[in-house]
Amino acid sequence: MLTYNKIQQAASVLKQVLRPTDLVWAPRLVPGCEQLYLKAENWQVTGSFKVRGAYYKMSLMTDDEKNRGVIACSAGNHAQGVALAAQRAGIDATIFIPSIAPISKIEATERYGVRVVIVDGVYDDAYQAAREFEQTNGGVFIHPFDDEQVIAGQGTIGLEILDQYRKKGKILDELDAIVVPVGGGGLISGVAAAIKKSNRAKNCKVYGVQAAGAASMANSLAAQQRQSLEHVATFADGIAVKHPGELTYQYCMDYVDEIVTVTDDEIAIAILHLMEQQKFIAEGAGAVAVAAAMFNKLPLAGKNVCAIVSGGNIDVNNLPRVINRGLLATGRLSHLTIELIERPGQLMGVSKIIADCGANVVDLVHNPGRENTDIASCILRLTIESKDKDHRDDVIRALGEHGYKVL
Amino acid sequence: MLTYNKIQQAASVLKQVLRPTDLVWAPRLVPGCEQLYLKAENWQVTGSFKVRGAYYKMSLMTDDEKNRGVIACSAGNHAQGVALAAQRAGIDATIFIPSIAPISKIEATERYGVRVVIVDGVYDDAYQAAREFEQTNGGVFIHPFDDEQVIAGQGTIGLEILDQYRKKGKILDELDAIVVPVGGGGLISGVAAAIKKSNRAKNCKVYGVQAAGAASMANSLAAQQRQSLEHVATFADGIAVKHPGELTYQYCMDYVDEIVTVTDDEIAIAILHLMEQQKFIAEGAGAVAVAAAMFNKLPLAGKNVCAIVSGGNIDVNNLPRVINRGLLATGRLSHLTIELIERPGQLMGVSKIIADCGANVVDLVHNPGRENTDIASCILRLTIESKDKDHRDDVIRALGEHGYKVL
Repeated sequence: MLTYNKIQQAASVLKQVLRPTDLVWAPRLVPGCEQLYLKAENWQVTGSFKVRGAYYKMSLMTDDEKNRGVIACSAGNHAQGVALAAQRAGIDATIFIPSIAPISKIEATERYGVRVVIVDGVYDDAYQAAREFEQTNGGVFIHPFDDEQVIAGQGTIGLEILDQYRKKGKILDELDAIVVPVGGGGLISGVAAAIKKSNRAKNCKVYGVQAAGAASMANSLAAQQRQSLEHVATFADGIAVKHPGELTYQYCMDYVDEIVTVTDDEIAIAILHLMEQQKFIAEGAGAVAVAAAMFNKLPLAGKNVCAIVSGGNIDVNNLPRVINRGLLATGRLSHLTIELIERPGQLMGVSKIIADCGANVVDLVHNPGRENTDIASCILRLTIESKDKDHRDDVIRALGEHGYKVL
Repeated sequence: MLTYNKIQQAASVLKQVLRPTDLVWAPRLVPGCEQLYLKAENWQVTGSFKVRGAYYKMSLMTDDEKNRGVIACSAGNHAQGVALAAQRAGIDATIFIPSIAPISKIEATERYGVRVVIVDGVYDDAYQAAREFEQTNGGVFIHPFDDEQVIAGQGTIGLEILDQYRKKGKILDELDAIVVPVGGGGLISGVAAAIKKSNRAKNCKVYGVQAAGAASMANSLAAQQRQSLEHVATFADGIAVKHPGELTYQYCMDYVDEIVTVTDDEIAIAILHLMEQQKFIAEGAGAVAVAAAMFNKLPLAGKNVCAIVSGGNIDVNNLPRVINRGLLATGRLSHLTIELIERPGQLMGVSKIIADCGANVVDLVHNPGRENTDIASCILRLTIESKDKDHRDDVIRALGEHGYKVL
């Protein structure tokens, strides 16, 4: 198993490539915490922490291995991490990306000058192709998480948090918890090992957070044996992992205090709050630790907490959808369907009530009624902006009081 | 006029409230620049630089003035800046906000515990109400820009840039330009005065950038006298100013090298690139300096440049629209209208061509034709995702080659 010295050694190797990322104070994000800090790995080179493990792994390869090149498989951050690491280390890299990956991620990987192979299908198809390529062409496969060197690289974040926390004039024994996003478990394995072996922050718990639709490691810890998922369902693609690693499962059993889950709505709300209050872009996977703190999934009330924002590579084409989801989930945006009798002035009546309530109409569709409605009726679909759920409910109540039928 | 010492004095006063904001290296944002740094005032407390001028102004008030309280008028950042400054300085504040301001900005201002008065109408109506309140109730009106103390406070950003640039091991005489967003001109007046009076960065130009739809200061410099606008038209509400200040006009004449304009599309693209490449949230006004650099509005090729990102308080309800505008303007998202003859298989044919080109359909509306189309036709409105304009044009060409009529 990993030693503390090994992680320290990784940290010294990684100085050559890493951008120092801040530990940012987030005073209003989670009112229940005594102090909340965010480790901003969304600002890391390549936009996520993944370059740490990849680069450290490559730094330990023999000259023969380096000459054979590296192989990786990923739809996102690991691809970019391996690509940058290979570029900096002067190693040939072939990266297999499933065709479902967003165009922007493929382009971002290609920009580092590595060979990219697009494989028709999902992650498992690309993984298959990568392992076949490894068999026929040789080269070192860089696993995204289930590898001791990769775990050591990711663990350097734990050391940085301790150093940065102390540099802010804080006492390490008063750091109560570090909250970490979990997909395959590489990041949390490294961070938990670093914290628990360091003896520098004696009271610090290490908690993990998964998406509810991809809770393979949480399930595994609960069952006390590795559990795979048939399907994963979350927009947090960076942690949508079916099979926990063997090594990472063992690290989580040994060093992690608890792993909890958050829903996609909670993740979207966390992304929204990070945007509004911290001016941060976090991707879905990057926001789960914050989401767990915001939605009281962990015993963090009154505690000094650090949440890792593990990456910021959200597909901007999807971002409007994520923002809208967050607005819907908090009642700041709502879809209303109203059945109207088709006669003049109805639309005006509805508009006036909404305006009088101080809400805004942002989208409107007006269609004839369908089979189960009055034949003289029509259906009005409105999207309105309001302050919160209570305000939205005020609007619905006012419409009802004026005789409008909100479906 | 402002002295260098005055700005230094402001900097020492402001240490009590400011969050130190980074000077962030942005290696790929504008390939033409030799080095580009961003001064990240979007991470300032209150989400913009405005708190600097407001707090410094209040620090110089007499006890009698402090007892009378302060009055301000703003739809956004100045409101929050004054509110936080008043809270920290323990001064009573009344802030007039026009009713068109987004709900989120009103709530953000109220959160600092000041008195907020919503005035029906736009900025000018709120301004009127604020000045009337000043007449009848007393209190010190804090002008958002046309005030020497406020300008001194904003100028502290210039000093910070010089200090931070040097701390990065750079030579100050090699800093070629600072690019600054301009609305009423308070920020650029302070920064230009600080740079030009410091003699520390002898070759550093100070450029300003306005939104093309609100170019009052650019027009004024061109005409060599203050010019007001009847209307302003830009989504960058933080710099949508009709009347340049008297003082700020004079500072711009004396110290600013050039003021250029950018379009709303260019601003939206800059916001998008800041999100994708820097994981920054910038508001419209905050992104204009970056937009000017990206779109070659200024002689920055091969230069060492610092662009000020002045704020990040974008209304998240509007953000999906801004992102979509940026995607549309770069050809990454496109609306296509296709006239189809209504017979089976047409929709499949179109879908196949788009898929074969490697583009994605993200939205689709299928309606009967209108008066000027073939009576057997229907209209297909598609929104597609593509890599860029060339890729979109490939899709349109392929559709045409297969006999589909793209309108």
